[in-house]
Amino acid sequence: MTQNHIIHPQDFLIDKAALQARRSYKWRHYPADVLPAFVADMDFRVAPAVQAAILETVEAQDYGYPLRGGDRPHLPLATVFAERMALRYGWTVPAEQVIALADLVQGINAAILAFSEPGDGVIVQVPNYPPFRESILTTGRKLVPLEMVRTQGSYGFDLETLEAVIDERTRILVLCNPQNPTGRAFSRAELEAVLVFAERHDLIVLSDEIHADLLYPGARHIPFASLSAAAAARTVTLSSATKGFNIPGLRCAVAAFGTDALLKRFHDRVPSRVLGSVNHIGIDATIAAWTEGQAWLDGVLAHLNAMRDHVAETLRRELPAVRFHLPDATYLLWLDCTDLGIEGTAHDFFLEHARLGFSPGEAFHPDGAKHVRMNFATSKPILDEILERMVKAARANQR
Amino acid sequence: MTQNHIIHPQDFLIDKAALQARRSYKWRHYPADVLPAFVADMDFRVAPAVQAAILETVEAQDYGYPLRGGDRPHLPLATVFAERMALRYGWTVPAEQVIALADLVQGINAAILAFSEPGDGVIVQVPNYPPFRESILTTGRKLVPLEMVRTQGSYGFDLETLEAVIDERTRILVLCNPQNPTGRAFSRAELEAVLVFAERHDLIVLSDEIHADLLYPGARHIPFASLSAAAAARTVTLSSATKGFNIPGLRCAVAAFGTDALLKRFHDRVPSRVLGSVNHIGIDATIAAWTEGQAWLDGVLAHLNAMRDHVAETLRRELPAVRFHLPDATYLLWLDCTDLGIEGTAHDFFLEHARLGFSPGEAFHPDGAKHVRMNFATSKPILDEILERMVKAARANQR
Repeated sequence: MTQNHIIHPQDFLIDKAALQARRSYKWRHYPADVLPAFVADMDFRVAPAVQAAILETVEAQDYGYPLRGGDRPHLPLATVFAERMALRYGWTVPAEQVIALADLVQGINAAILAFSEPGDGVIVQVPNYPPFRESILTTGRKLVPLEMVRTQGSYGFDLETLEAVIDERTRILVLCNPQNPTGRAFSRAELEAVLVFAERHDLIVLSDEIHADLLYPGARHIPFASLSAAAAARTVTLSSATKGFNIPGLRCAVAAFGTDALLKRFHDRVPSRVLGSVNHIGIDATIAAWTEGQAWLDGVLAHLNAMRDHVAETLRRELPAVRFHLPDATYLLWLDCTDLGIEGTAHDFFLEHARLGFSPGEAFHPDGAKHVRMNFATSKPILDEILERMVKAARANQR
Repeated sequence: MTQNHIIHPQDFLIDKAALQARRSYKWRHYPADVLPAFVADMDFRVAPAVQAAILETVEAQDYGYPLRGGDRPHLPLATVFAERMALRYGWTVPAEQVIALADLVQGINAAILAFSEPGDGVIVQVPNYPPFRESILTTGRKLVPLEMVRTQGSYGFDLETLEAVIDERTRILVLCNPQNPTGRAFSRAELEAVLVFAERHDLIVLSDEIHADLLYPGARHIPFASLSAAAAARTVTLSSATKGFNIPGLRCAVAAFGTDALLKRFHDRVPSRVLGSVNHIGIDATIAAWTEGQAWLDGVLAHLNAMRDHVAETLRRELPAVRFHLPDATYLLWLDCTDLGIEGTAHDFFLEHARLGFSPGEAFHPDGAKHVRMNFATSKPILDEILERMVKAARANQR
């Protein structure tokens, strides 16, 4: 298949029986009668180029120490990431300032250790990806929440409120952009406000940009480090092909340091080899995704866009009490089910009464028990079954 | 193929053209006319059960978040490791005290950070695996060498000499058993002497036992932590299937903490998620190796044993000036080429005059420039070509 071949859903959709046969967390965590719509991977085959890169190693049983960039297999990965950032966003970062990681959570943890001390404050948008919140707490740092608030048709955040709660021991701001679970891709004005704030309080910014590949028409991704040289000097950008190209099990991510000085400061506290080496199947798959995967990604995004609109229309028509905003990016919806009048948590309600497995809102926000996060990266028949069960259970409860 | 099928060399040997087509460090690092005998992987196909475990994921493109032991994929790995230790060595370690790593060097680095401070001393046998020596230096610790000395027909070490050079800031002893590059599998008496020494100086012992699967007839592996409860309480055992089962690129290893208190002390300094998650292809392959790979390993060991004896006989007959001892374990030979009268390093001599790629002795020991480490895990035809080139070049130099 050439890179210019147009990808249709039938090229990547997998039928339900094959999904159920997988040994995946998504399809095995809940009992077999539960339809899963939680953990962030997609019910799709990977890009042909990704599979070809994996098969090259597997068919040759070439599992020895790899030669990729001499004895530094992460270097080609760093180079491809840097080229991709320059091409897509006009952001220049030298490959020498990009390191390989197993996953973003490792990067967040390591950067928290490197750039703060126990008891220091770490700002994180809430709701947010639960492991980021855990990272702050298990390293003995103080979680300083930056609330995502519902605005006219979208979500925003309020830096004035944050100003009131931080103190001189606040060292780090974890930015998630596009944001999980709200799906916001922040505007330049919003990001510049964060930068002014970070400069005023001398904060290191850890910018999780893993969802940048999953952007819908009309939205734009702006790497935080691309705002200015001063922004780059205080920013560690974290990314991976695992979300956009659906390979989270392969464990390969990158951290890009805006300056060499920042990378050196990091390694003074966290030596490179404490992070472990990344397996070369993950590296090869990531390089293939980033260099040859665009046609597949375009096809997947067209399908996700259609599913996003389909879910939104259906919920607005059938369950107007569920409040949400259309995401700018991600295949995730942050659903406020407060007005459904559910007793207990929304997650438990849908699990019990609709046999649906959503992500529990309380894992993303202490006050999120009436929310769920819904993953709509599946086929239309499965999605319709999810919506049908959801509507039926919610209506029965409202009667 | 059943587990009881007898494995012959033709079941795992790969021809030279296929090896040269690999993108492996071993076969691509040197120019094409150089025969490689350096980096520690084997020129063999993997165990059928290992390949089947990998193919199960790859054919289903099941690259999402894995379900293996719920959302803790390392748990089945830890369980299998603990069961293997109990079965093979009568050593009991609870699976809850076993963590997953990408590689042993990560474990050594992390344990050095957890159990010592900058400036503290770390004892390591020399010659030793170069990344261990680097780990001590890049973390700002002081390397305290424990010399391996040639004894009657073997190698030993001298703890009295060590006693004279350590001080109260020496915190850690890195033990490599079986030892790389000398191939020694230490006796119970030797290990007990190390334990007495470690107790007297209150040292944490980091016991690299990655070569334990590659033991020759007559040799025995004794896990250091199995010596006594007191030994376990100060020991972190590091292991992996990557050496014995030839899958280093897949990046999966374990660290077993002798007590829960030791693990807790480790995690107080090195939070779990700083280490990153291990990819599930590596985990699956390791579990398959440890539970279904024995027939393959037996076949490989029979071949390695024959190659070990063949190299030894050939060198003793054709190049008696090269001094070495038969290894108890590993497919590595530590060759003292001092008496060959080579100018410059032994590595460079054989590279230039024999087009052979050995591991340079000076990477394992500051005074090792007249040594090379030879990897004999290949087919007899390739090994014969290596020996022929080696003998020819050395003899020409002696004339």
